[in-house]
Amino acid sequence: MLAEIRGLNEECGVFGIWGHPDPAPISYYGLHALQHRGQEGAGIVVTDGEFLRAVKGEGLVNDVFSNGKLEKLQGKAAVAHVRYATAGGSGLENVQPLLFNSTTGSLAIAHNGNIVNAGRLKRSLEQQGSIFQTTSDTEVIAHLLKKSHYNSLVERAKEALRLLDGAFAVVILTEDKLLVAQDPHGMRPLSLGKLDDAWVVASETSAFDLIGAEVIRSVEPGELLIINDEGVRSERFSEPAERAICTMEYVYFSRPDSNIDGINIHMARKRLGKQLANEIQIDADIVTGVPDSSISAAIGFSEASGIPYEMGLIKNRYVGRTFIQPSQDLRERGVKMKLSPVRQVVAGKRVVMVDDSIVRGTTSKRIVKMLKDAGAKEVHVVISSPPLKSPCFYGIDISTDSELIASDNSVEEMCELIGADSLSFLSVEGMVGAIGRPDEGKNCGHCLACFTGEYPTPIAPNTKLPHEKELVR
Amino acid sequence: MLAEIRGLNEECGVFGIWGHPDPAPISYYGLHALQHRGQEGAGIVVTDGEFLRAVKGEGLVNDVFSNGKLEKLQGKAAVAHVRYATAGGSGLENVQPLLFNSTTGSLAIAHNGNIVNAGRLKRSLEQQGSIFQTTSDTEVIAHLLKKSHYNSLVERAKEALRLLDGAFAVVILTEDKLLVAQDPHGMRPLSLGKLDDAWVVASETSAFDLIGAEVIRSVEPGELLIINDEGVRSERFSEPAERAICTMEYVYFSRPDSNIDGINIHMARKRLGKQLANEIQIDADIVTGVPDSSISAAIGFSEASGIPYEMGLIKNRYVGRTFIQPSQDLRERGVKMKLSPVRQVVAGKRVVMVDDSIVRGTTSKRIVKMLKDAGAKEVHVVISSPPLKSPCFYGIDISTDSELIASDNSVEEMCELIGADSLSFLSVEGMVGAIGRPDEGKNCGHCLACFTGEYPTPIAPNTKLPHEKELVR
Amino acid sequence: MLAEIRGLNEECGVFGIWGHPDPAPISYYGLHALQHRGQEGAGIVVTDGEFLRAVKGEGLVNDVFSNGKLEKLQGKAAVAHVRYATAGGSGLENVQPLLFNSTTGSLAIAHNGNIVNAGRLKRSLEQQGSIFQTTSDTEVIAHLLKKSHYNSLVERAKEALRLLDGAFAVVILTEDKLLVAQDPHGMRPLSLGKLDDAWVVASETSAFDLIGAEVIRSVEPGELLIINDEGVRSERFSEPAERAICTMEYVYFSRPDSNIDGINIHMARKRLGKQLANEIQIDADIVTGVPDSSISAAIGFSEASGIPYEMGLIKNRYVGRTFIQPSQDLRERGVKMKLSPVRQVVAGKRVVMVDDSIVRGTTSKRIVKMLKDAGAKEVHVVISSPPLKSPCFYGIDISTDSELIASDNSVEEMCELIGADSLSFLSVEGMVGAIGRPDEGKNCGHCLACFTGEYPTPIAPNTKLPHEKELVR
Amino acid sequence: MLAEIRGLNEECGVFGIWGHPDPAPISYYGLHALQHRGQEGAGIVVTDGEFLRAVKGEGLVNDVFSNGKLEKLQGKAAVAHVRYATAGGSGLENVQPLLFNSTTGSLAIAHNGNIVNAGRLKRSLEQQGSIFQTTSDTEVIAHLLKKSHYNSLVERAKEALRLLDGAFAVVILTEDKLLVAQDPHGMRPLSLGKLDDAWVVASETSAFDLIGAEVIRSVEPGELLIINDEGVRSERFSEPAERAICTMEYVYFSRPDSNIDGINIHMARKRLGKQLANEIQIDADIVTGVPDSSISAAIGFSEASGIPYEMGLIKNRYVGRTFIQPSQDLRERGVKMKLSPVRQVVAGKRVVMVDDSIVRGTTSKRIVKMLKDAGAKEVHVVISSPPLKSPCFYGIDISTDSELIASDNSVEEMCELIGADSLSFLSVEGMVGAIGRPDEGKNCGHCLACFTGEYPTPIAPNTKLPHEKELVR
Repeated sequence: MLAEIRGLNEECGVFGIWGHPDPAPISYYGLHALQHRGQEGAGIVVTDGEFLRAVKGEGLVNDVFSNGKLEKLQGKAAVAHVRYATAGGSGLENVQPLLFNSTTGSLAIAHNGNIVNAGRLKRSLEQQGSIFQTTSDTEVIAHLLKKSHYNSLVERAKEALRLLDGAFAVVILTEDKLLVAQDPHGMRPLSLGKLDDAWVVASETSAFDLIGAEVIRSVEPGELLIINDEGVRSERFSEPAERAICTMEYVYFSRPDSNIDGINIHMARKRLGKQLANEIQIDADIVTGVPDSSISAAIGFSEASGIPYEMGLIKNRYVGRTFIQPSQDLRERGVKMKLSPVRQVVAGKRVVMVDDSIVRGTTSKRIVKMLKDAGAKEVHVVISSPPLKSPCFYGIDISTDSELIASDNSVEEMCELIGADSLSFLSVEGMVGAIGRPDEGKNCGHCLACFTGEYPTPIAPNTKLPHEKELVR
Repeated sequence: MLAEIRGLNEECGVFGIWGHPDPAPISYYGLHALQHRGQEGAGIVVTDGEFLRAVKGEGLVNDVFSNGKLEKLQGKAAVAHVRYATAGGSGLENVQPLLFNSTTGSLAIAHNGNIVNAGRLKRSLEQQGSIFQTTSDTEVIAHLLKKSHYNSLVERAKEALRLLDGAFAVVILTEDKLLVAQDPHGMRPLSLGKLDDAWVVASETSAFDLIGAEVIRSVEPGELLIINDEGVRSERFSEPAERAICTMEYVYFSRPDSNIDGINIHMARKRLGKQLANEIQIDADIVTGVPDSSISAAIGFSEASGIPYEMGLIKNRYVGRTFIQPSQDLRERGVKMKLSPVRQVVAGKRVVMVDDSIVRGTTSKRIVKMLKDAGAKEVHVVISSPPLKSPCFYGIDISTDSELIASDNSVEEMCELIGADSLSFLSVEGMVGAIGRPDEGKNCGHCLACFTGEYPTPIAPNTKLPHEKELVR
Repeated sequence: MLAEIRGLNEECGVFGIWGHPDPAPISYYGLHALQHRGQEGAGIVVTDGEFLRAVKGEGLVNDVFSNGKLEKLQGKAAVAHVRYATAGGSGLENVQPLLFNSTTGSLAIAHNGNIVNAGRLKRSLEQQGSIFQTTSDTEVIAHLLKKSHYNSLVERAKEALRLLDGAFAVVILTEDKLLVAQDPHGMRPLSLGKLDDAWVVASETSAFDLIGAEVIRSVEPGELLIINDEGVRSERFSEPAERAICTMEYVYFSRPDSNIDGINIHMARKRLGKQLANEIQIDADIVTGVPDSSISAAIGFSEASGIPYEMGLIKNRYVGRTFIQPSQDLRERGVKMKLSPVRQVVAGKRVVMVDDSIVRGTTSKRIVKMLKDAGAKEVHVVISSPPLKSPCFYGIDISTDSELIASDNSVEEMCELIGADSLSFLSVEGMVGAIGRPDEGKNCGHCLACFTGEYPTPIAPNTKLPHEKELVR
Repeated sequence: MLAEIRGLNEECGVFGIWGHPDPAPISYYGLHALQHRGQEGAGIVVTDGEFLRAVKGEGLVNDVFSNGKLEKLQGKAAVAHVRYATAGGSGLENVQPLLFNSTTGSLAIAHNGNIVNAGRLKRSLEQQGSIFQTTSDTEVIAHLLKKSHYNSLVERAKEALRLLDGAFAVVILTEDKLLVAQDPHGMRPLSLGKLDDAWVVASETSAFDLIGAEVIRSVEPGELLIINDEGVRSERFSEPAERAICTMEYVYFSRPDSNIDGINIHMARKRLGKQLANEIQIDADIVTGVPDSSISAAIGFSEASGIPYEMGLIKNRYVGRTFIQPSQDLRERGVKMKLSPVRQVVAGKRVVMVDDSIVRGTTSKRIVKMLKDAGAKEVHVVISSPPLKSPCFYGIDISTDSELIASDNSVEEMCELIGADSLSFLSVEGMVGAIGRPDEGKNCGHCLACFTGEYPTPIAPNTKLPHEKELVR
């Protein structure tokens, strides 16, 4: 139920295109398919080979590009971004792509992920006289690139990327090329596609489907793609480290119609639900999922367990960012917000409630109570992933240890805290197996840090979590 | 697939409350639960026993009541409305509740439905010197009431309501009472509920669930409820005619978590899907529903047919009213808008695609093509209601005869037009049986006019359809 | 200094045009020339002979008609209005022209003045079943006209106008004519002009100058002009009563470049200043006027007295409606707002400060203090009109008796209250003579009620002042 | 008539304050007094000793700081700016003060003037890896300061300032001090004042009057003031060069109630008008000034010539930035915009029309025609400054040579071009004498470049004029 605590939000989404006669509308539709990855801001930067022009704004893609703003963006290539404010503060200046005009060559950067050593790099650059315009980690990349002593932009970019620790899927647009890079662990999804003669890159393949492009392949760990009028050239800025793709992309973040490394998300979630049904034994009358992200797992659970799937919870659409929250008093008297139970469906029933994860437990507690108030005889909470025990430093907005209910409570204690009749989690092995990535062995190609506390990169003692960075200026 | 042709919209929703210390926020949350019934405008009028004060606006509930506007609405009772512009034109003045201040007593009116003889009544009133402020049918009610020679407001209201032909669920607020009326055929849903000591009325029971109120009963055909500080008094302005509840409320309009006359909508739709599976025979690999309104029927179809349910289509959220439509060129090149197929789910499969209805057929055609382009081997379209053959004069935005594909095409012709491998509809009897209303006999308590062309009220020769009225000023 | 207490505002301005291929832009520029008469709202209604279409809004003309809104207003005739909220409350519905669409003929009304018996007329109409849409007096005219038993619109209009008491300059637009009427006393200025083949009417002749039209004549007391494709026809709805043009139009309200009955306002004000210099004797070093309205009088005073005119006070432009008022603390510490003294001009000087009027005295007191703080040795306040002793019921926003400093203070007391070294007013006779209207005899054709308390029309005991009406709904 | 061609605009205004408990409102009122110097944008940056916080926006001071935005700006010191877009392009990022947050110390810069060698300095900095965020010249100062090898901020600032060529009045705010600098020629006005215990600086002394502060003295050429909690310390970053204060500040730019080096602007302009009357001989009936900037000179001319001063031209207020310009057709048919003639004042008269300057001549031509169309028998144009022959590189928006009518036309030719009966200019000596600065000798302390073509600083061959810079990115 990660969506609940973050106001429907997750990390960021990036998009890029080179060689298309109308790159701005294509980017706009591409961002639509990525909107679920970030709703705090959106931007598109286009180049016509001579200048880079940006339209950016806070809010949804729909709102940012209203009123003919796309028409200002004529050119042949674009980079675009939807933003969820993990790293760096809010404010228009932090909305990406960041655009840097210069007599030595302009560039625009879109970035998904979190640079663990950004603070240290920034302090060092400022001491050399660099002036930062934003509080975003991403700006570090531009300064490193501009300060590099190499002559060619590609070599400058490689040097800059090598200095970064953490997770990063990066797209850089200049007047004459598009640079696309994936961190050495390949922690964030990033795919290459083709739309007629144009090359496209995106955080999720659903963006390709929506614009009618063909999926070519994932960008590889440590890879740097150089895309220009000649086509695509693949180079490396680093040897690939052990693969550590974010597991939560499968469990929760990505759209059901996206594929990561060839694995469809809806199918993976359905398998997570089936695996969960295989691992546990529950006597119940109906299965219901917490919409939207847990529907696939619930259907899988229903199929494997034979317990019928019903719509026991309904999501209240139209609860936008200007929604007036009910007062505490009204909430206690039963005013619902994002979810409503379907009384006639759950009344008198033993209900299996499938959710994707539990963070602080408050939302789960509220839903369990809601179902019981609507007459459910029993509520069995089943989670299609293991307990979240450790914070994420790579761009996912999972709170500090102390706010993760699983970090200092046993499953039994958690069950009591959320008021359920039973609580079950999927095993780590079960999860990894159900997702079904081809790789085997240690880490299985997944980053499992939030479940196991084993981080794929070194984390310095006082590294800040993404959401803590806003305070540092 | 009615939702598609109308931009996610249907007819209107009304809400009323009497005897609550904070009626405006309660109305706001009530309107949220009714938002799917109308997205063109919203309004709340509150009385403190002395004055009536309104906040109204065009757009979604969220947008209309932003920025502390609710705080202006202090009082003890309210009437509220979400508007889908069927009857009368657009424009803020037509947003309901309509508020009429007068030294002879103020009143605010919210109305769901369509008054078939409104044009004739209006012309007659204007010839007597009345001045209309809006192009809304609803204003006729206010003028009739103010012109009545009776002394008491209740008698004036009864006289006014008796003069109306058509469908109407009406809520009227004055300084000292709330009047609630349902047309003699009971064509639109309208329920009475209780929230602590306050009485509430709403178009759908989901509004009661969201605010934590208890459902008491439906308002009866021809009934006039008078709600004031003394409680609720039931009177009649007309003998009840044969019951003719709108069938499309079950099939498509209402929220899955609402009940109409005790029948839950999700459950009814699931039964429609099961009945459909019983009536026809299809060999297929997967069942998928067109989101959101056909998911329940699809799950029912899956259960009864044994063909597994999969998420073969995904709805693109965030496609709001400011969405920039793709150019014809981009659309032809594959840019999707509201729906995307899930390629890995449908590729190589024989797909049963469940939808609730077919209006013009263009949307069905587009979805069939989308599924085939995504690799579906066969697409069998199954519709959980009978063919729509006749226009609706009672408030549902179903186009004129000539635009209804079923009005002059056989099922085989329609199948060919939409490019499906097969097309099946539910029978009228099967539909009525699956919904399961208790009444029996002619019309079964349902209005079936759009399927059968038999209208429960007389329709004068040149009666205008709701959506044609805007032109008449 | 009337402008100061009312935030730069006065009563309303009306404009009309018939027979022009592009009436909306002409009306827009006409309203610009009348903007000083009302800044709370503006509207234009145009007819193409078939429909009446309105664009209205709160705020300045500039703001209301931004963004291509004029283009919606195609036609051949228009009525337009700038509003200063004297009669009736605020709110968009009260912005004029009021537009009433009806199957019996539409009409739009713009009105300058105040109908003294509007409250009584409205109550009577409501008891007959009429529903009012606004709290504006002006709406009474529409209902009276629609209720009339005469057949022709012209006769209906005459009957309606005969029922009104008070001051009114009215312009009514229908699909096929423009009706223009002036109350029997001719209390508000209203002129007829010609622009090529089109006829125009406006509250001030400056509107004709700005659009390049020719002044024809004033509309006469009791006259009803009927303007249509045939030309102008003059009729009467009433015999003219004794002329009583508002004197403050000459003294303060109208633009310096307007003429009323052939008398230029700047020249009249200069004569008021000269007359004042002739009536009193002051030893001083410089003369300064309170900008903007008293500059003409100050120059006249300087010419007649021989004391040099200097710019001792400067107006701070850009102090718009969103201006953040200084806190009491800051104001006491010297933060100025609308006016600043020019220190080097006034320091050490004996200053004659010319103003047009004194209402509550607070502004005069502030300016005197400001001049003294800037080093003025003496400040002699001279007012180019007599003391304001009685409230105005005809549309000028002069407060109740108790708020008029001159209603219960002698000139000596007022002088002490405002802290001046001397205070002088112009005599009534001097004022009337300096303005120089041709008529002679009782009242001299002027309404002098605010100076003398003699009202030209009967005022019922509890008649409300214009600014008190908003409370009555 | 410079105001006309620039849409009411001139160069910029700066304001600074240190040691006040509520610096934001004081800055707000200070900016109001400077609003005439720039209307494209406004900003205030405040420090509380720890952080710097900015509120900036495009448009008028009133609009930028609406809605409680000032309340966010708590602290003890501020720097503020109103912007007229001479140097650098438009866009929010160019609105000053420019704010640079850094771990090595934050700073905010407000600048009035034009740095002639900015382009060269910027290219050099970019080649060293600096990234610019704006297209404003002012940003060069920040980078130079951050790149300096000195340790102390004061020494860094001196080094940076020494590298600049051109005109600059600069105010820099850091967490612990306010730095105030004036270029070695002292080309832009900049004054120091005191408000209770706080120190203030402003482009014009009218800002001190409006906030109730006391004028202390002008900031001297080459001076660097360091203001902090200890008080004010005066240092020098450069020896003062020959004084070259912009003459147009006296003639046209500054407010009439400001003083520059102790000389009041209104009085100076009145002397310019008198001197003009002494230099030429005209037989005429009335004198009129082009409002607002030429009124003082017109009154002076009237006094010295004995020809009475009349209000022959009136300015149409409310012609804001959203004003819809009349079509060419309407303009030719007589629709006026910013100015209207007062027909009764000028008809049949020989008119002396006083203006402050002629740039392209189009406005003068329009006014002469307007007066003649209104019936003026003769129009004698007299200009209270010499002909403008050369462009300004120091921040004044005077067009290139080819657009200056005086650069290639004799006075007789100009007279014919503008359609006047005679045209007279003030002599350079007469102007300098009338202004009355104490200094004597070459240049008299004035920059006379626009009249004489002799520039006080070297101008490199392809130096761009301020308004040409936007194109260079």
